[in-house]
Amino acid sequence: MPAILRLHPGPRYSEASIHAGTIYLAGQVPTDTAQDIEGQTLEVLDMVERLLLEAGSDKSHILMAQLYLADMTDYAGMNKAWDQWVVAGSAPPRATVQAQLADPGWRIEVVVVAALP
Amino acid sequence: MPAILRLHPGPRYSEASIHAGTIYLAGQVPTDTAQDIEGQTLEVLDMVERLLLEAGSDKSHILMAQLYLADMTDYAGMNKAWDQWVVAGSAPPRATVQAQLADPGWRIEVVVVAALP
Amino acid sequence: MPAILRLHPGPRYSEASIHAGTIYLAGQVPTDTAQDIEGQTLEVLDMVERLLLEAGSDKSHILMAQLYLADMTDYAGMNKAWDQWVVAGSAPPRATVQAQLADPGWRIEVVVVAALP
Repeated sequence: MPAILRLHPGPRYSEASIHAGTIYLAGQVPTDTAQDIEGQTLEVLDMVERLLLEAGSDKSHILMAQLYLADMTDYAGMNKAWDQWVVAGSAPPRATVQAQLADPGWRIEVVVVAALP
Repeated sequence: MPAILRLHPGPRYSEASIHAGTIYLAGQVPTDTAQDIEGQTLEVLDMVERLLLEAGSDKSHILMAQLYLADMTDYAGMNKAWDQWVVAGSAPPRATVQAQLADPGWRIEVVVVAALP
Repeated sequence: MPAILRLHPGPRYSEASIHAGTIYLAGQVPTDTAQDIEGQTLEVLDMVERLLLEAGSDKSHILMAQLYLADMTDYAGMNKAWDQWVVAGSAPPRATVQAQLADPGWRIEVVVVAALP
């Protein structure tokens, strides 16, 4: 079994850990809180994609996505961004629940587990 | 490392992905929202079981279950259904928190990770 | 693929399952609800650590940590405990959201996935 590889390790958390062909991402959150739910979702999904590329994978290899919405009325707006981002034929299992997030300006947080190709 | 297998792939999400001997299910939610928490839990757990069977596994191989309850006062009723469903000697790790779900009629959503035998 | 090993199996859940080099812990919650968030977090993280040791791993091998806070105003206090507990250079990916927990006395619940060395 290979050792654990960590991406962007910091004193509090790292952005990803890779072990046994599986990639675990930290909860990804928006930086531009002035954006609406569609814009925040696109930004967060772009962060997910860049981390997966950095790990040597891509968004067609997502195994599971857990989405947290600060307000469930954003569900349709989130899906608008999600549907244009997800890879046709490789849409992963998903779960979406409402939860208050650490920063009141964040409307979405996404946790992803993915596979190395 | 084998490729990713997806069950019931759709344009937005699939019901399961299978990779490296591990099965990730999408959040399972009830279809019959007229039922009480015990009935909704049993329906959702039956969905979990059918997906695991379809993946070539079964409910004795669950590695972790994350339960979301729309109202924590349903905790006892959920457990009544859970306790009669879970396989004696193979009860998995579990976490249960309250979270508002995407449909106000849903009282429970269950996310499962399981192993192939 | 080896069979699933379960730690502290009970009729409702077990504290951990181990499969294919990966350890899944049940949601860990405090027993001493008289403590403040820092004390509850330290107790819960100590539980995590003891289960990982029992599984043959340790806290430097955490792959992902999902934290639930009953009240997001406890975020800074949780981090105070987290920052002194986490292993320098091995801080795992993490996600923290607010969620009401099963016992109103619990201020935190932690779900961990880790690797065997």
